[in-house]
Amino acid sequence: MQIGIMGLGTVGTGVVELIEKNNDTITKRIGDRINIKKVLVQNLNKERPTLVEGKITDKFEDILEDEDISIIVEVMGGEEPAHTYIRKALSRGKHVITANKEVISKHGKELLELSAEKNVNLLFEASVGGGIPIIRPMKQCLSANEITKIIGILNGTTNYILSQMSERGKSFSEALKEAQLKGYAESDPTNDVKGFDAARKLAILSSIVFNTRITPEQVYTEGIDSISPADIQYAREMGSVIKLIAIGKKHENSVEVSVTPVLLREDHPLASVAGTFNAIMVEGDAVGPVMFYGLGAGKMPTASAVVADIMEAIKHKNGSKIHCTCYNHLNVMDAGAATTSFYLRLRVLDRPGVLSKIAGAFGENQISLSKVFQKNTMNGTAEIVIVTYDVPFQNLQDALSEIQAYKQVAEISTVIRVEGER
Amino acid sequence: MQIGIMGLGTVGTGVVELIEKNNDTITKRIGDRINIKKVLVQNLNKERPTLVEGKITDKFEDILEDEDISIIVEVMGGEEPAHTYIRKALSRGKHVITANKEVISKHGKELLELSAEKNVNLLFEASVGGGIPIIRPMKQCLSANEITKIIGILNGTTNYILSQMSERGKSFSEALKEAQLKGYAESDPTNDVKGFDAARKLAILSSIVFNTRITPEQVYTEGIDSISPADIQYAREMGSVIKLIAIGKKHENSVEVSVTPVLLREDHPLASVAGTFNAIMVEGDAVGPVMFYGLGAGKMPTASAVVADIMEAIKHKNGSKIHCTCYNHLNVMDAGAATTSFYLRLRVLDRPGVLSKIAGAFGENQISLSKVFQKNTMNGTAEIVIVTYDVPFQNLQDALSEIQAYKQVAEISTVIRVEGER
Repeated sequence: MQIGIMGLGTVGTGVVELIEKNNDTITKRIGDRINIKKVLVQNLNKERPTLVEGKITDKFEDILEDEDISIIVEVMGGEEPAHTYIRKALSRGKHVITANKEVISKHGKELLELSAEKNVNLLFEASVGGGIPIIRPMKQCLSANEITKIIGILNGTTNYILSQMSERGKSFSEALKEAQLKGYAESDPTNDVKGFDAARKLAILSSIVFNTRITPEQVYTEGIDSISPADIQYAREMGSVIKLIAIGKKHENSVEVSVTPVLLREDHPLASVAGTFNAIMVEGDAVGPVMFYGLGAGKMPTASAVVADIMEAIKHKNGSKIHCTCYNHLNVMDAGAATTSFYLRLRVLDRPGVLSKIAGAFGENQISLSKVFQKNTMNGTAEIVIVTYDVPFQNLQDALSEIQAYKQVAEISTVIRVEGER
Repeated sequence: MQIGIMGLGTVGTGVVELIEKNNDTITKRIGDRINIKKVLVQNLNKERPTLVEGKITDKFEDILEDEDISIIVEVMGGEEPAHTYIRKALSRGKHVITANKEVISKHGKELLELSAEKNVNLLFEASVGGGIPIIRPMKQCLSANEITKIIGILNGTTNYILSQMSERGKSFSEALKEAQLKGYAESDPTNDVKGFDAARKLAILSSIVFNTRITPEQVYTEGIDSISPADIQYAREMGSVIKLIAIGKKHENSVEVSVTPVLLREDHPLASVAGTFNAIMVEGDAVGPVMFYGLGAGKMPTASAVVADIMEAIKHKNGSKIHCTCYNHLNVMDAGAATTSFYLRLRVLDRPGVLSKIAGAFGENQISLSKVFQKNTMNGTAEIVIVTYDVPFQNLQDALSEIQAYKQVAEISTVIRVEGER
């Protein structure tokens, strides 16, 4: 079976190496050998693995128009030209395997419809959770369930940074620098740190489990760059940790989707997910809670998912069984209407009556408070830490803009969601 | 799509209820509706769900010979007549879905070969881990990996009993009684408590991941009935918990398979798996460690897996893609040759020189000791707790039979494996 690979960066190299290493086993398992016929690269002059010597091209058409190649693997990353190449490959009746979360989260529906029309496979297990089996289990193993909730750690970079801040007391910028040195974060870390990467993955997973199309722009997204060591310390004192959490919830006629920092109790199954690991919990009406855990990124874990998809495409030469199943047309709930509990940290003037004034603003906006602590008094100011009961985000915002206007309030330092506080 | 169901016990009733509840969603997802045409029961006079009224029979032939029925679901349990019925159904060209770990672990190879020959599906996701997706992820998502190790908690009943002993200080028999009252353990708990149920599941998983046929009798199996509250207490003092752990390890030309109580450090991912939950960790050469977690048994979780398999069989009407892949012929390592660290508890006479004599017996058998504690001296005897470094089980047995013969040794109370001690 002849394949073409587009892209020879970290993941592309991993795919080539894994095929080289395990091709005998692969052949025994599927009764067919994977032969890499052509590899598309940007720069013909760079050093390349020996395995792909003589197979390299910088012209997409060389792969597209090669009739021997029936499977094209897209591991270039980025929206364009990957999206166009995938569309052209499918149109020409080629199976496509991709690890591209940007393309799938933005154009998955159209591409899946095209693949169904052409009766070819479009497989993208590697686009979420690296090597962790998640897309296929959702689409197949849990398909008899109505999924009511999905909650997960979908970005290893931010989880590494938060783990370092929590375990070693580092600041955000120290932990980010270390993640960059270790190769866990890119030189421009925006997509990870601001939550965009996790939002794309959540859009893909939510579209699958709620059977409705959700795009990354519809995911309410906050990054981790405003989390301070103080927040992590106060969270710990309350028996909690702070994680960047992706949540999708099914309501009667709408879906709530968000990626934000969240306080999780230490006994929550996601709380102990450390370092660059990812984990995804799904709640089904029949199966109950199910969790998947593993390395969510990296060369070989991602290659593991890509090569497994190649093997599936070979086994299902006559067309895909992974179709688009977005038959629902659910609204995405406005972030203001989404209800949760919140952790707040404020700096106020250390004077009598300030707390009562703040509590008043919460009361007026129908917000009940679960915990209030005064911390760290210095230079005439005090830090107030508050945990609310469940409240619509809009009410909280209304209360906070009132509070912000009080001259006794120096700063609203942090607002973080809390999971599992009622 | 017409199906026949054999068995209407807990799981069978769950399957009927889940199809009734989610059939609209199921129809949208696969483009076909599941119609239960006939249900095989043992006793026609018992009360039955309304949904299956008028569909009940006590003759297998009524289902086998019904040409409208193309999928047969086997949820009777037990080796016979389930095994014969499945074989006959496959021979007649019907797809078969089963939750039967006993039949699959003992006859899976032959039945899968028959299903391939007849070009029909034989699916058994529910046979391991209840609703947790595990068979399909192993066969498909992780198929590009060489799997080197599998370690898991595969039996919810024993995990519940051990959790109760650990969290509430109950004795084994108290905790068993409570599990029986809550419906987590059967009136004859032998299969669970002695580890046989977990051994069957491990045989199925190991056959898949190591691509070699492993039967339940080849799994070295110890139960949890000899674990005492003292062991749980001493484990805790060492920062560990005791779990019934199934382990499969790939060696160069052999496979090591066991189900035994194991001391796990508290920070091991399996250590926090509590109550009736199951979890399975797999180590692949590309993907690294991956874990699957959820409810390993019960009416609706098991039904979740069975109905998902029905949906897969409907999508793949033209034959299975889940074939037998036991192309290796690896030996199963003799339990005596398997190397691990051990926890031992002995009762000895409280006299000088006893410890040195015991240590001598270990030394003679090339066993190094990692920890030795003296505990709980009373009535002229003392309890000795020992943790060894890695040692072949045979060496340990040799040392223990020497020690057993010493007149100063009153009892070798417990021998438990330790995971992760070097």
